[in-house]
Amino acid sequence: MTDDRPLVALTMGDVAGVGPEVIARAWHESPIRSLARPIVVGSRAVLQKALNHARSDVKIQSIQSPAEAMPTAHIIPCLDPTGDPLSDIAPGQISARAGRAAHDFLITATDLALAGEVDAITTLPLHKESLSLAGVKHPGHTEILAERCGAAEHAMMLYLDHPGGGESGLAVLHATLHVALRKVFDLLTIDRVAAKIRLADEALPPLLGGRPPRIAVAGLNPHASENGLFGDEEQTIIGPAVMQAASEGADVVGPIAADTLFVRALNGEFDAVIAMYHDQGHVALKTVGFDRAVNVTLGLPIVRTSVAHGTAFDIAWTGKAEISSLIEATRVAARIVAGRRALAENRAVN
Amino acid sequence: MTDDRPLVALTMGDVAGVGPEVIARAWHESPIRSLARPIVVGSRAVLQKALNHARSDVKIQSIQSPAEAMPTAHIIPCLDPTGDPLSDIAPGQISARAGRAAHDFLITATDLALAGEVDAITTLPLHKESLSLAGVKHPGHTEILAERCGAAEHAMMLYLDHPGGGESGLAVLHATLHVALRKVFDLLTIDRVAAKIRLADEALPPLLGGRPPRIAVAGLNPHASENGLFGDEEQTIIGPAVMQAASEGADVVGPIAADTLFVRALNGEFDAVIAMYHDQGHVALKTVGFDRAVNVTLGLPIVRTSVAHGTAFDIAWTGKAEISSLIEATRVAARIVAGRRALAENRAVN
Repeated sequence: MTDDRPLVALTMGDVAGVGPEVIARAWHESPIRSLARPIVVGSRAVLQKALNHARSDVKIQSIQSPAEAMPTAHIIPCLDPTGDPLSDIAPGQISARAGRAAHDFLITATDLALAGEVDAITTLPLHKESLSLAGVKHPGHTEILAERCGAAEHAMMLYLDHPGGGESGLAVLHATLHVALRKVFDLLTIDRVAAKIRLADEALPPLLGGRPPRIAVAGLNPHASENGLFGDEEQTIIGPAVMQAASEGADVVGPIAADTLFVRALNGEFDAVIAMYHDQGHVALKTVGFDRAVNVTLGLPIVRTSVAHGTAFDIAWTGKAEISSLIEATRVAARIVAGRRALAENRAVN
Repeated sequence: MTDDRPLVALTMGDVAGVGPEVIARAWHESPIRSLARPIVVGSRAVLQKALNHARSDVKIQSIQSPAEAMPTAHIIPCLDPTGDPLSDIAPGQISARAGRAAHDFLITATDLALAGEVDAITTLPLHKESLSLAGVKHPGHTEILAERCGAAEHAMMLYLDHPGGGESGLAVLHATLHVALRKVFDLLTIDRVAAKIRLADEALPPLLGGRPPRIAVAGLNPHASENGLFGDEEQTIIGPAVMQAASEGADVVGPIAADTLFVRALNGEFDAVIAMYHDQGHVALKTVGFDRAVNVTLGLPIVRTSVAHGTAFDIAWTGKAEISSLIEATRVAARIVAGRRALAENRAVN
């Protein structure tokens, strides 16, 4: 019998951050391998150092290609694309070498995914300043991925899967993200909000057993403006965007006051929420599921998830970093791949 | 032995809303009477109707003064200040009579508190339109209370007490509240943020066994602007406000990125969070404790708490409204009174 669990490449990220130790410690936990066959793309020497640090006796299988990988509870396959061992780089150290290597791990894994040699990639955090020191012009993962994949439009979805792995997770997409709150008003347009609704509508069926998601759009103002009492973006932008997306077939409602919307969504009324700005979505999801939140990049030709935390240089290599986000990110990547396969098979049959 | 549990007047609010039934149903629950001696200020006829509706055999004790009140699990004292029975008003009906009566219940309870005949008031929701029809010029509770009490400055604190009633609750104050998000930028000033820090610092010791609160201030922008990358209000307004309040003796830190701040506060690192705008605080608190959140009005000469929900005309008199918020609001009012008494006694001793 062949093992058809999706092959997921875990990119090590910046070796001065929490990435390596999180991989080493998460490997002990069977949920990381229950739905996926993970492999590591990163420095073999640093991975060994991280395993030692975690007092783990898991053995590294050095591989040249994902097809060779035999991941088990005792074997961690590692594809090391750079010549640099990197194991001399100190925790929390900003360095061009670490930045360059983290970039190369990501490019290698992306190329493997584009070539179909792995089914998905799950990324550990990069460090912006180390990347910049290495001469990488992009500030982070999504920009590098978008360029490498030739993707014109992409978006980040925060996803909190149900602990049981069931279908009652919650996805959050943001109409605007890493911009000053003051800039939100210029960026918020009918097209932008409608585009996020469409992205959620297209992306979520693989995670929902094939059914279309029930989407709700948050208001921008307190109480979703109470019919114009506190602002008018609900009437001029958000409402029309909901109408437009609904007329195109999305199962979408809104605008709904943000403070009650997330409660309703978490209680199972909606599968996805479109937040208008960064903190609106992040405060809700992180407050209820900080350690389990996962980033999913939409709009790429490959499946990519990411841990929701950063390099956390302040606690790197101390054994304190949470491993739940990596386990969840790997599981969710595998669930998306498996869901897409099932949908494709259904389509082929019908 | 005298009963020194604080006397708390529950104002019935708008009789067409969920107030009366919430009182009738909450009376069954012993936590509403564990720390407080509650009395109802409202229509006796409507209270009887609500008890019937809840199939409760609790008897009403009609009182003229709070001193007569003998609240038990089987007796609900009711002070009815209006001649209007109001029991003909339909659920969800907007009416001047209901608005006028709700206003009068509130004024009566406030005057009792100002006269020291009750120790605190806990209010059930009003309806803005019924108030307006009744010719009341104020849109809600806080404005009416502020005028009646002659309070120049007042603020709302959202409070989520620990289920065990311990000291690890979380208070949230807002620098700005019911305004369009676009207006926040004009309203946010060093003085305004510092004033909220001071209010939290003064208000919380009675809920914390006398010790000063550990306060954290949220950033306005994503990631608290990452040192100016996404906006500058952290550097020009929030940071200086924190410095000012700290120099005056408050135990305060910030600005801290909102999405991680609430998690840290809920884990016990802080007693109070100063949110910059409505949804920042409300999304967090309502997402984790929607039914148990309580409003506390600060800056008044009387102790006043309120349920965090509205009249909910859509579900009024159906038995669906949550009673936890009233129970918590009554408990928290009693805790504040008891805490203030203990502090006053300590001061008298020392």
